Amino acid sequence: MKNQIAWLKEANRIKIEDAPMPIIQDNEVLIQPHHVGVCGSDVSFFRDPTLNGRFSPKLPIILGHECGGVVVEAGSKVSHLQVGDRVAVEPGVPCCKCEYCLSGRYNLCPDVNFMAATPFKRGALCRYFAYPAQMVYRLPDNVSTLEGALMEPLASGLYAAKRGKVEPGSSVVVIGAGCIGLMVLQACRARGASQVIAIDLLDNRLELAKACGATHVLNASRTDAVEDVMALTRGKGGDIVFEAGGSTHTTALTSRMVKIGGRIVLVGMTHAPVSYDFFSVVRKEAEILGVFRYANMYPLTGEAISSGQVNVKQVVSHQFAFEEVQQAFETAIHQKDEATKVMISMQE
Amino acid sequence: MKNQIAWLKEANRIKIEDAPMPIIQDNEVLIQPHHVGVCGSDVSFFRDPTLNGRFSPKLPIILGHECGGVVVEAGSKVSHLQVGDRVAVEPGVPCCKCEYCLSGRYNLCPDVNFMAATPFKRGALCRYFAYPAQMVYRLPDNVSTLEGALMEPLASGLYAAKRGKVEPGSSVVVIGAGCIGLMVLQACRARGASQVIAIDLLDNRLELAKACGATHVLNASRTDAVEDVMALTRGKGGDIVFEAGGSTHTTALTSRMVKIGGRIVLVGMTHAPVSYDFFSVVRKEAEILGVFRYANMYPLTGEAISSGQVNVKQVVSHQFAFEEVQQAFETAIHQKDEATKVMISMQE
Amino acid sequence: MKNQIAWLKEANRIKIEDAPMPIIQDNEVLIQPHHVGVCGSDVSFFRDPTLNGRFSPKLPIILGHECGGVVVEAGSKVSHLQVGDRVAVEPGVPCCKCEYCLSGRYNLCPDVNFMAATPFKRGALCRYFAYPAQMVYRLPDNVSTLEGALMEPLASGLYAAKRGKVEPGSSVVVIGAGCIGLMVLQACRARGASQVIAIDLLDNRLELAKACGATHVLNASRTDAVEDVMALTRGKGGDIVFEAGGSTHTTALTSRMVKIGGRIVLVGMTHAPVSYDFFSVVRKEAEILGVFRYANMYPLTGEAISSGQVNVKQVVSHQFAFEEVQQAFETAIHQKDEATKVMISMQE
Amino acid sequence: MKNQIAWLKEANRIKIEDAPMPIIQDNEVLIQPHHVGVCGSDVSFFRDPTLNGRFSPKLPIILGHECGGVVVEAGSKVSHLQVGDRVAVEPGVPCCKCEYCLSGRYNLCPDVNFMAATPFKRGALCRYFAYPAQMVYRLPDNVSTLEGALMEPLASGLYAAKRGKVEPGSSVVVIGAGCIGLMVLQACRARGASQVIAIDLLDNRLELAKACGATHVLNASRTDAVEDVMALTRGKGGDIVFEAGGSTHTTALTSRMVKIGGRIVLVGMTHAPVSYDFFSVVRKEAEILGVFRYANMYPLTGEAISSGQVNVKQVVSHQFAFEEVQQAFETAIHQKDEATKVMISMQE
Repeated sequence: MKNQIAWLKEANRIKIEDAPMPIIQDNEVLIQPHHVGVCGSDVSFFRDPTLNGRFSPKLPIILGHECGGVVVEAGSKVSHLQVGDRVAVEPGVPCCKCEYCLSGRYNLCPDVNFMAATPFKRGALCRYFAYPAQMVYRLPDNVSTLEGALMEPLASGLYAAKRGKVEPGSSVVVIGAGCIGLMVLQACRARGASQVIAIDLLDNRLELAKACGATHVLNASRTDAVEDVMALTRGKGGDIVFEAGGSTHTTALTSRMVKIGGRIVLVGMTHAPVSYDFFSVVRKEAEILGVFRYANMYPLTGEAISSGQVNVKQVVSHQFAFEEVQQAFETAIHQKDEATKVMISMQE
Repeated sequence: MKNQIAWLKEANRIKIEDAPMPIIQDNEVLIQPHHVGVCGSDVSFFRDPTLNGRFSPKLPIILGHECGGVVVEAGSKVSHLQVGDRVAVEPGVPCCKCEYCLSGRYNLCPDVNFMAATPFKRGALCRYFAYPAQMVYRLPDNVSTLEGALMEPLASGLYAAKRGKVEPGSSVVVIGAGCIGLMVLQACRARGASQVIAIDLLDNRLELAKACGATHVLNASRTDAVEDVMALTRGKGGDIVFEAGGSTHTTALTSRMVKIGGRIVLVGMTHAPVSYDFFSVVRKEAEILGVFRYANMYPLTGEAISSGQVNVKQVVSHQFAFEEVQQAFETAIHQKDEATKVMISMQE
Repeated sequence: MKNQIAWLKEANRIKIEDAPMPIIQDNEVLIQPHHVGVCGSDVSFFRDPTLNGRFSPKLPIILGHECGGVVVEAGSKVSHLQVGDRVAVEPGVPCCKCEYCLSGRYNLCPDVNFMAATPFKRGALCRYFAYPAQMVYRLPDNVSTLEGALMEPLASGLYAAKRGKVEPGSSVVVIGAGCIGLMVLQACRARGASQVIAIDLLDNRLELAKACGATHVLNASRTDAVEDVMALTRGKGGDIVFEAGGSTHTTALTSRMVKIGGRIVLVGMTHAPVSYDFFSVVRKEAEILGVFRYANMYPLTGEAISSGQVNVKQVVSHQFAFEEVQQAFETAIHQKDEATKVMISMQE
Repeated sequence: MKNQIAWLKEANRIKIEDAPMPIIQDNEVLIQPHHVGVCGSDVSFFRDPTLNGRFSPKLPIILGHECGGVVVEAGSKVSHLQVGDRVAVEPGVPCCKCEYCLSGRYNLCPDVNFMAATPFKRGALCRYFAYPAQMVYRLPDNVSTLEGALMEPLASGLYAAKRGKVEPGSSVVVIGAGCIGLMVLQACRARGASQVIAIDLLDNRLELAKACGATHVLNASRTDAVEDVMALTRGKGGDIVFEAGGSTHTTALTSRMVKIGGRIVLVGMTHAPVSYDFFSVVRKEAEILGVFRYANMYPLTGEAISSGQVNVKQVVSHQFAFEEVQQAFETAIHQKDEATKVMISMQE
């Protein structure tokens, strides 16, 4: 066993270097990643590591926080995992002491060690890494490590759908059919939503949205999305509107698309201020719910894949070997429209 | 158009008589029932009309509160329905004034006029009846009037599953696989439950439970159901346990089958006192949630059938013509084990 | 008994005219208003009846929807009220048929008949008016009709505090210490909030806020309110931030004052778009909850006054006789800063 | 500093012995208890250490889990506490890894180390003990260490009231006015309950209930408590009924006292099976909520005392010095009716 790490040492440049094998603690396992997904936030770091304010770590850093792999060593205090187990890694280790951890919202822990983010700075793009066993989940037998890597974005989607209280009978609008939007959409279907309207500017994404279970798709470059949503919902708007586009424009649309008494769930990260119609929010007594990552989702995420309620594999548009990691990121940038999900497959 | 009514004038004896056509009010529609399901409560009334305490009306009475049919006349103030519409009838008209109605729990309205119950006493087993349009729902195009009749028990199932907060990842136990148990089971699947364990004493019902989506079935006459539930849930018990057996024995089992922190939902009506282990309820910090009928369920019930999330037709075991109503009830009594749902089909 | 009505026939001009006595329906009572509060929305109508878009009725109109009075006649179907009862009038009669009414959110009923608003157009500024008994509440013995009139804004405050899930231990920020802000503040104290920080630009209002139970007051004209809130909450921000200022500036502040995982409740009506930092909402996983009027609040509102949990009388800054109604409105306009609540006292 | 421990080595016999000073870990503090309350569960252990099944530790054991004291040493990783801080100790250290801990219900953690219980077996009845700093809370300046010890039963009361969703307007019944009942009662008042009816068999407890804010008290030895509750609630029953009597008789009463649509909260531990009327639970669509200890309550508990919302001191009926610990327990047993709370005051 020989370790290698894909270091981001400067913007736009990842270099693979040999590295010592990690030493695990009693409560840790040694993970050999088999698949690592490239997330939009990885790409943002890659392009401009100074961008994201307080989240932005100093270089060098190891990217990658969507990881399915195999346990190759287990600490003495680890009981729920064994060597050889195929696993998914939940990429945040909370402090377990603050008010957020104690009350079940560990995704809000200010001292979380999140992979590839300050202060931890270590992600999954390496041959081996040590990780607290507590946040490592054994995969069901019929779930692959590629699907294990995709449990991370699916966890976001299931969490958002849960926070939006989607249920049978719900009419749902998902703005943005990128990876997260597609996961939200599948999560809404898994929760029984009756109507799921996907909106995007790209037809290839909308095709994928259909395959993921959207009952209607709208290309906002060719149609008035607000009008269409109103028509499809008999003039009412969506019970729950998910913003997964991450732009000021798409965020501003939400107040117009939501039904009286409905909910808006913000999944995308819109950095610039949005000129927003709060009068409608009050008039409609709507709710706007921010969503930051997820908590307590991994176990059910694996079951949702295992049972066939969701099909996450279909969002993968590109696969690269570990040695091609630089090319993988460049593809994610230069073929942004087609690259729904770039996956690094670590095994030959 | 000539009206006929199936009167229950004495125990165990229904007689069809000619009757005047009903006159509708401005806010009412005239319904021609096409299908009327026979509910366990109808059978109880039929056998012993003095049994049920305050719910028990004085005879004569018209039974039947599961009804799909057609609108043949609409009052002047009715705007959402037209003559010819295929509809389902929600069988309770609440007062709209009490604290329960105003706060959205109209199923608890003490002044509700429920079909075939005091004080209304009029059910659907007739050729025509007038009904407030507000509680009449147009069926989606691909939903039949037979399915419309089955929306009533499905509404109970969906309501119970909602009250139990079933969602993706949930492990669910349903005790009793009669009509309501089967509806609960389907509702749990529609909400995304990962594991649904059905328990009954009859193999034919458990076969049906499998067809309705149970992931596991247990015949409690041949096995220790509590032990099996524990084994299937890795020693934890069900996240949500539904009691749909309506017996003291099945009710008493719930505290043993529920997981720490879980929920017990009481759907069945157990009249006799139950010797119950509340120490476990406290120790596990479990919740026991009574369920009485349903509220605000009909619209989504139709959509759940229309979208294929549930398949209600398969619970129908017997069909009879209106003229055979006496035989229909006798079948429900004498072939109780096989008669999952007896349906009266009013049209030739 | 001789009726008189205060008509708003043109902007800025109310004229009292003799009128016929109203005839009540079976389910109505005849109300003689004793006290009618002047709400900010009344003043807006008075100044510019064309302003408020779809809510804006055509003139003439009778203003006033905060009313405490006496029952002088009761319809034959009214059982819970008797002639002579001192009562508060809830100023909205919902349709009782739409999905919002049936599900307990009747404040969102699109067909509500709200006093002094389209299509009803009739408010309480008259000697007598007929009203559906269902929305009329008998006052506890120790609650005056003046307090009865103030139950309307208190209902808004209690509803907002309930929607914000204020409870013992909560740290609360209330932006805007006008009548509604003061009611929110008292409601938060009644629910057990540990810390209530009131913010306004006017010292007289902040004095009143203190009397209403604010634990801290901040004059935003002399201090940086965000910094002060952070200091008072040990760098965390408020668990719940209420926007009761109704301006783009105060609305924009909310995302900065709310704690990670906290809630923002929008009580004020801000008509213009707000440049808003949704990135913080996502990062903090905050919730923004619109509040539109209230539902199911009147009974507990009376009890909160009766038990002494709140003291609503102290917000009344001016009282006028019915004959002085024009002067009352002019005072509300020209002495806006001092006029926390102008009350019309109808009895000599 | 010299340590002493009060060992329970056999039933009914506590013996104080000299002991070595505890050594603290980096994340621990050394606590010098000033006040330790005697809980009913301590007394049960004292009388019969074999009684409580799986909770029952093998002897010897150190009793006491209600503790207020002072920090006399702090580990190197402890940042929120300093030597000299007056503190309250939350008597359970959860594992922080299981699904219950991660989801905010750490009171249900199967691996919790609870003071004076298996497997920890060490309670507060000693001169000094080491404890994880994470579960130690600094007291507000105006809260004494005696009140700090009483934060434990108050946490139970506030948690039960939160679980029961008590709020302004609520009508509440508390069955049993022992220490926990009195804490529940105060918690209900702090949350704004309008009506709080306390029921007990002992007049001295009911006097205390009045002092704690009960609006009505009922001595069930002289009156029909169900009838009286119905009369006081205008025939409806309580919105929330708390069972704090811990007997089969009081548990059985709850279904009769609860309102339609109401909640029953089980705070007491009733070991024997209860013959229970679940038909009423279904008919009323009531909820029965088990309560096991509490979670996330200590911070607000301190604030509730500090702000004067509750007055916990008044429940203390007896105080003893550490040297009198045997006498303290005997008093709790032999003067059970008067001994609302026996407190060990460790300081001379």
